[in-house]
Amino acid sequence: MDHTAGELARYLGAKLIGDEHAVIQGVASPERAHSTDLIYLGSPRNFDRVARSAALCVVAAPGTAMARKTVLEVADPKFGFAKAAALVLAEPVTPVSVDPTAIIAPGAHLAPDVTVGPYAVIEDGVTVGARSAIGAFCFLGRGAVIGEDCRLHPRVTLYADARLGKRVEVHAGAVIGSDGFGYVFGEGRHWKFPQIGAIEIGDEVEIGANTTIDRGSLDSTRIRRGVKVDNLVQIAHNVEIGEHSILAAQTGVSGSSTLGRGVTVGGQVGIADHCTLEDGAVAGAQAGIPTGKTIRRGQTVWGTPARPLDKFKQQYAWLQRLPEFAERLSKLEQRTLKPDGA
Amino acid sequence: MDHTAGELARYLGAKLIGDEHAVIQGVASPERAHSTDLIYLGSPRNFDRVARSAALCVVAAPGTAMARKTVLEVADPKFGFAKAAALVLAEPVTPVSVDPTAIIAPGAHLAPDVTVGPYAVIEDGVTVGARSAIGAFCFLGRGAVIGEDCRLHPRVTLYADARLGKRVEVHAGAVIGSDGFGYVFGEGRHWKFPQIGAIEIGDEVEIGANTTIDRGSLDSTRIRRGVKVDNLVQIAHNVEIGEHSILAAQTGVSGSSTLGRGVTVGGQVGIADHCTLEDGAVAGAQAGIPTGKTIRRGQTVWGTPARPLDKFKQQYAWLQRLPEFAERLSKLEQRTLKPDGA
Amino acid sequence: MDHTAGELARYLGAKLIGDEHAVIQGVASPERAHSTDLIYLGSPRNFDRVARSAALCVVAAPGTAMARKTVLEVADPKFGFAKAAALVLAEPVTPVSVDPTAIIAPGAHLAPDVTVGPYAVIEDGVTVGARSAIGAFCFLGRGAVIGEDCRLHPRVTLYADARLGKRVEVHAGAVIGSDGFGYVFGEGRHWKFPQIGAIEIGDEVEIGANTTIDRGSLDSTRIRRGVKVDNLVQIAHNVEIGEHSILAAQTGVSGSSTLGRGVTVGGQVGIADHCTLEDGAVAGAQAGIPTGKTIRRGQTVWGTPARPLDKFKQQYAWLQRLPEFAERLSKLEQRTLKPDGA
Repeated sequence: MDHTAGELARYLGAKLIGDEHAVIQGVASPERAHSTDLIYLGSPRNFDRVARSAALCVVAAPGTAMARKTVLEVADPKFGFAKAAALVLAEPVTPVSVDPTAIIAPGAHLAPDVTVGPYAVIEDGVTVGARSAIGAFCFLGRGAVIGEDCRLHPRVTLYADARLGKRVEVHAGAVIGSDGFGYVFGEGRHWKFPQIGAIEIGDEVEIGANTTIDRGSLDSTRIRRGVKVDNLVQIAHNVEIGEHSILAAQTGVSGSSTLGRGVTVGGQVGIADHCTLEDGAVAGAQAGIPTGKTIRRGQTVWGTPARPLDKFKQQYAWLQRLPEFAERLSKLEQRTLKPDGA
Repeated sequence: MDHTAGELARYLGAKLIGDEHAVIQGVASPERAHSTDLIYLGSPRNFDRVARSAALCVVAAPGTAMARKTVLEVADPKFGFAKAAALVLAEPVTPVSVDPTAIIAPGAHLAPDVTVGPYAVIEDGVTVGARSAIGAFCFLGRGAVIGEDCRLHPRVTLYADARLGKRVEVHAGAVIGSDGFGYVFGEGRHWKFPQIGAIEIGDEVEIGANTTIDRGSLDSTRIRRGVKVDNLVQIAHNVEIGEHSILAAQTGVSGSSTLGRGVTVGGQVGIADHCTLEDGAVAGAQAGIPTGKTIRRGQTVWGTPARPLDKFKQQYAWLQRLPEFAERLSKLEQRTLKPDGA
Repeated sequence: MDHTAGELARYLGAKLIGDEHAVIQGVASPERAHSTDLIYLGSPRNFDRVARSAALCVVAAPGTAMARKTVLEVADPKFGFAKAAALVLAEPVTPVSVDPTAIIAPGAHLAPDVTVGPYAVIEDGVTVGARSAIGAFCFLGRGAVIGEDCRLHPRVTLYADARLGKRVEVHAGAVIGSDGFGYVFGEGRHWKFPQIGAIEIGDEVEIGANTTIDRGSLDSTRIRRGVKVDNLVQIAHNVEIGEHSILAAQTGVSGSSTLGRGVTVGGQVGIADHCTLEDGAVAGAQAGIPTGKTIRRGQTVWGTPARPLDKFKQQYAWLQRLPEFAERLSKLEQRTLKPDGA
């Protein structure tokens, strides 16, 4: 759908300098942009790239003079660009359809304007909210609940009774509600601890491709509103992740760990079981947080075992000074063997 | 199916204190339990949680007096609870069905009481044993063999000739028998080393969601009886994993490594190629075991490169003492520059 | 298809000693070989294994005398074996078929000799080149392009507009072209940065099972010719990977990082965003390369943060000498307290 620069300025609360009737039909990088694409200037060092772009409309910081371009001035141009993109790229209302090859159990409840792709399987007792789109090959197990305006890309699997909120996006191959990994050894073999708990995904969560999130064992796994989870992440039974937290790719969170609000977890981080990451904590890429550990509010940790970033850097610096220490030690030994040294 | 406390007591070899006719219909956590759910008391610190529960029947250690509850006394209550759950949660015999949309090659051999979900594809020469359930979208490649009482959740892929034993459970999205990763560089490009070996999964193995297990290159990949593999684990060609070993999520085992019986591998561990982990070895989370390394029977290792846990802890303690050493070194240098020091 | 030793000798440029009419029908390890399987002798320590094999034909280094066997002499026997296997194992031309359950949009363009498995879904505007095989449950999103002679195993998902070159092999469960992971926080929540860029996979690339490769955000993700990617690897938006590079299992490459030609990346390596690995660089297993770091041409790095292998080994050696330093320090302190010491 076409938009105008003036319309975007009002939507962003931006000051418009230039042509309020300029038409915006997409978003792009400066090099790939057509004249009707919106671009942004995030840093002064990109000024020339942006100035040379074919795009006629730019989101930029206040005071950015740019010849022959319409400028939307906002305090945080990258944020303004992302917010504008949410409007510009919003998918047009497509004709709703349920593919005739989708298998929908008679006891499933689909809102009338739901889209279902080919070969999707929707079991008994499933509920799908208004305007949600279920991709090809999705499997929604018995009793699963999907809120309004969700988007499941092809090949998403929900085990029985998994619950998704509204405006949730799940990428291809993700598995939600699989059995947790818990056993008790006895009589010469592992007995499975029951994995029959719940799994609840809040509103506006996004879940990456081939990510796996286990259901609770006896209690619940809970991913709160606004959480973003990258590809190939593992979230174990009984984990709770607070609102607006971010988990980068290939990170693993073990059983019964709790992350607060606004926690940031880098890629390939391992969080062992029964850990607590308080609100706003940050775990750097590849950090390893040992069993039962608490990371305090707003603290940034690094390394394995995870420690405060400052301490990590100091230790690494000390480690690099070891050759120097060894030399000073040898010198001292030489002197001390000759007491008349100095 | 309903059970009674008396029946469970006999099954567990437990001493029953209370009402042997108490009906058990499920298992639960103390807070979520209904009166007919079985709960357990694993630790004295949970006594109040358990005592307040609506559940009428508790698995607990000998000597646990609990007013108004029927107690099943066993030495290891968590084990007793898990074993009881195996009975209580055993799925009732459901009507066997082969979904009409499943595509089953004429040359496949399915026992008469096999269940096949919608859109499963079963190629020529496949054998599926009695009472096994093949989920929606499963793909069983040419010649694959599945034993009795297996359960494949939706979207499991078996490459040609993969073999599963009895009572194997495979979670959604797992891939079994894919090509190993081996190339020989020559004439300016990588040539694939043949990946045509076998893959054998033993009885009572459980495999997590989106886990990948490669077939052997020229020989076999073997996962022995009772092994439990978590989500997103990678097992490479020619690997052998001994009975009752446990591999936590996101761990990787490289080509031709061998794990003995009862090995425990934490999450995100990397085991390089041609390693040996002898019976009962333990690799802590995120450990990295270098190429060709042997971990001795019963040894616990930690860190990268993996070393015995004691040594890892000592080294970490030494690392933390470096500032102290530096200070002592400086003090010595000052004294030595003034030989009349002390 | 049957081959003869003489034919293979000509194909490999090998010197043949023995029976040029010996028939070759497969490849195998020495222990599993039938008489008509080709085997190889890669190292003198395997001489007895090879000599005892039932196989009649061996690829070996020049000067390898072996009674009763036909020997194909090449400088690099493992390479010769892999190259021979490419010929011997080449799949016979099977009857081309498009399964009647495949859903192919009217606007898709399939070369006439393409094979499509059951329940594949091919959307509008897709192009599939000659002789390519699309497995069961594959999903090819709108506008995707697949070159000639590709092989997609079951359950591969291509998001819209993903482009694959020729002779590309993709294993089960891989996801290509999913949204990158980028958000801008503002007004109390994460806004998705647009993830609408391209994804291009070059000729002769192989991609492992359940691997995920994101499309570019505004620009492109590019995997160049001959790259080999193992299972469960994550490749983020705007990454570029140069020709013939190798990425082992569970490695992650973050946004906008660039790998040159012939780069080797071990398993579980984490490459943060905006890194550069120049041609021929090597990152050891579990290495962690911090944001923005450059690894120079041909350099081998290890550890987290990644450093040159020599330095890593030295530091580790120093770390192990700390108890010795502590003892020497204590001895010096004792002496210095007694100035008449020596």
